[in-house]
Amino acid sequence: MNIVLIGAGNVATHLALALQKAGHKIVQVYSITKESAQQLAKKVSSDFTTEVNQISRKTDIYIVALKDKGLGDFVKQFEAKRKIIVHTSGSVPMSIFNNQSSIKFGVFYPLQTFSKNQTIKFNDIPVCIEASDTKTENTLLKLASSVSKNVYLINSEQRKLLHIAAIFVNNFGNHLYTIAEDILQKENLPFEILKPLIEETFHKIKKYSPSEMQTGPAIRGDKEVMQHHLDYLSCSPLYQKIYKLLSDSITKNKEVKMLNLKDP
Amino acid sequence: MNIVLIGAGNVATHLALALQKAGHKIVQVYSITKESAQQLAKKVSSDFTTEVNQISRKTDIYIVALKDKGLGDFVKQFEAKRKIIVHTSGSVPMSIFNNQSSIKFGVFYPLQTFSKNQTIKFNDIPVCIEASDTKTENTLLKLASSVSKNVYLINSEQRKLLHIAAIFVNNFGNHLYTIAEDILQKENLPFEILKPLIEETFHKIKKYSPSEMQTGPAIRGDKEVMQHHLDYLSCSPLYQKIYKLLSDSITKNKEVKMLNLKDP
Repeated sequence: MNIVLIGAGNVATHLALALQKAGHKIVQVYSITKESAQQLAKKVSSDFTTEVNQISRKTDIYIVALKDKGLGDFVKQFEAKRKIIVHTSGSVPMSIFNNQSSIKFGVFYPLQTFSKNQTIKFNDIPVCIEASDTKTENTLLKLASSVSKNVYLINSEQRKLLHIAAIFVNNFGNHLYTIAEDILQKENLPFEILKPLIEETFHKIKKYSPSEMQTGPAIRGDKEVMQHHLDYLSCSPLYQKIYKLLSDSITKNKEVKMLNLKDP
Repeated sequence: MNIVLIGAGNVATHLALALQKAGHKIVQVYSITKESAQQLAKKVSSDFTTEVNQISRKTDIYIVALKDKGLGDFVKQFEAKRKIIVHTSGSVPMSIFNNQSSIKFGVFYPLQTFSKNQTIKFNDIPVCIEASDTKTENTLLKLASSVSKNVYLINSEQRKLLHIAAIFVNNFGNHLYTIAEDILQKENLPFEILKPLIEETFHKIKKYSPSEMQTGPAIRGDKEVMQHHLDYLSCSPLYQKIYKLLSDSITKNKEVKMLNLKDP
């Protein structure tokens, strides 16, 4: 397919490279920032522009990979006319395109965290598709399948939920690593020492549900150890609060499960 | 070395298998529960007992791999005499052995989460050593190095900190996965869909500090998306509270870092 990419950030870059590798042609890259547009255009040997009214019409699809706020602004300025237009956001409903003259629109949401210098196997990334109509849906499914083996049909409501769940595992998960690193620094211990444990935490849930894999003082109900840790964390009321809340949540989860077991 | 293992749970089992594989001899396994003792003894072709006064004296070292409470009770009943005695706990100080007649004691703490049916490459597991004296320290270092390539000298204070940090990444990390799974179930979405993201969250910190890898609405200061998510989570006040607290913590962490940058 011929593709115009709106945006030149992390998502746009990783997506453009994967699409090109799959045999599609990136016709043009648009970005407000000339440098970014130029940089990505160079990588995929395409044209580029920084002007909305210069965006090419010689394309099958517009993929808008902008930040949520930028996406709203862009949609107000640009008409896809009879071409397909999709966005790549987890938190914006497909209905943002309702006012477009195009009747072919949708969402192409790769569920992954992209960083500038981190290469990634796009083939493993779940791509969540939603479309205005069956024909567009088929086109998007085909496009998604050309870059990933994990393609899902996900509606806007589901995508919102998925985005929240992704924040829990990725954003909050990474923040727990940051807290751990910070705690270790107090005694000059290297973060390195925790990596095998972090890896194993992930490996365990490859085969089992995380709810079955819970370990530690909270699930054991070991109040003595927990109180000891809370006392120790008194130097950081915030970490103490997080320790307490997550431990309470683990305990509550266990109680809920035990309650369910008791159900006839 | 000749080793007597006190305990037959997950830690004892994984440790016994690794030690045997490294060429050491498990002389005997002790457990209160006959079935557990027998089961592990069979795996490492050793003797077993359920009686403290039947614990073998023909050993170089006693490795006490019991739960924290069980460890305290055991130490009151058993005298290692002139042999080395160590425990494997993250949260118990070495001084628990102070009342022992033995003057050779220490800690042999494998920093990992062990499950019954999950095989694990012991060689990658960090083993944290602490000892009563230099000679014992050298013996423990040698023993640890025979089963793992990651051996650290860690004192009791450091180990307490390490254990708390481990709870953040492992116990709390796994709980975040559980919450995500629970959220997805509301729309019948498979947890599977999040696994590539979870894997990437871990891969990123192989090369970079997690504090540099933070992404998402909280670090971007995207209050609109966060409020939207909080509204959505109103059906679960607990998850809402966790979302808010962790987002606040991410924001605060960013502010602290920016404050540091401004320092002359």
